[in-house]
Amino acid sequence: MVRVELADLQPDPAAFLGQLSYLTLVLFENLGRATILAPTAATKSRLSQVAADVLAVHEGVLAELKSRRLDPAEAMEPYRAALDEYQRRTRGADWQEAVLTSYLTAGFLLDFFEGLAAALPRPLAERIEQLLEEDAGEHLLVEELREAIESNPRLAARLAMWGRRLVGDTILVARSALVTGGALPDPARMEPAFTELVAAHTRRMDALGLTA
Amino acid sequence: MVRVELADLQPDPAAFLGQLSYLTLVLFENLGRATILAPTAATKSRLSQVAADVLAVHEGVLAELKSRRLDPAEAMEPYRAALDEYQRRTRGADWQEAVLTSYLTAGFLLDFFEGLAAALPRPLAERIEQLLEEDAGEHLLVEELREAIESNPRLAARLAMWGRRLVGDTILVARSALVTGGALPDPARMEPAFTELVAAHTRRMDALGLTA
Repeated sequence: MVRVELADLQPDPAAFLGQLSYLTLVLFENLGRATILAPTAATKSRLSQVAADVLAVHEGVLAELKSRRLDPAEAMEPYRAALDEYQRRTRGADWQEAVLTSYLTAGFLLDFFEGLAAALPRPLAERIEQLLEEDAGEHLLVEELREAIESNPRLAARLAMWGRRLVGDTILVARSALVTGGALPDPARMEPAFTELVAAHTRRMDALGLTA
Repeated sequence: MVRVELADLQPDPAAFLGQLSYLTLVLFENLGRATILAPTAATKSRLSQVAADVLAVHEGVLAELKSRRLDPAEAMEPYRAALDEYQRRTRGADWQEAVLTSYLTAGFLLDFFEGLAAALPRPLAERIEQLLEEDAGEHLLVEELREAIESNPRLAARLAMWGRRLVGDTILVARSALVTGGALPDPARMEPAFTELVAAHTRRMDALGLTA
């Protein structure tokens, strides 16, 4: 559903790859930060495995840039300031919030880019869809968060609030990616796609027993 | 040389794998932190590739623990406090110091564990040596540091001082790994091995044009 609506937008491949490349770095940094903050060796180790999955996506995108003779640094640089600001706002106060950020923002934004990817020229579209298809360790993040909530039920209310705050900032990033990506969406036509993305976000919150 | 001297120590495999596993997490976290602090998309992306290499070593060690039916979390936990304290002390004040930490501490400690690995039972010894043989993106760290020093020559003095401070803390970690690893070294017999490790450290500093 998301895919069909976003697929009409025909993003510029260089802009698409540059943004996705920097976004995956930001997602990696979030996981790195969550790993640093995590209290036990077991949690650190599992979070690091999710970080490895996200890095594999980043490296896949870099390879696409290079095969088009685009300089990765130049392709990413235009998107750095806005994504760094997004990262700063969604950093979270402790490891549980940082893990929730990793889970929800990677879920939302990789879904979003997967939807956009359908409109890229073939065979780039297929390769990017394949790269984004994997859930990048999402189930490990869900397990960590469920355990954390079970062992401290008061955490649920705080994480629910944090999840609500995250979705607002994340929608803004997705919208601005459309504009800077060279797609000029008709806002009315975009609504169904965003409705789907938010519904998926609600399902991710549900999986933790949290109200979106 | 390092290898021969350390190979007499016969470390306990579980202790060896538990320590190496947590150490590689600490090295990953250092690279994650350096990536977060790095100022450009290009540097961030290259540091993240080194982080991926270190995570591959971590996952390789986890696989060895699991194949021996050892719980990775339990195996790592005894070494967490000391290595967290080491990490805290060697964090660095900015991205250049954090990258120097990643370069020098990974170089020293992975050499050290490679030396110890020779005394593990076969074929575990070969597999660990193979895992540690790769230089885990060392050349990328050298390039980043050289560029940083070239564009700001005053950085050299500060990084030289930081490198000297790092080696002291790093030697202490290696020595205490010997004791907690079940090896009971005769200090006099260990000296040649540490002399070699420090000589390799000096060569790493030389590669940056810094005085060790």
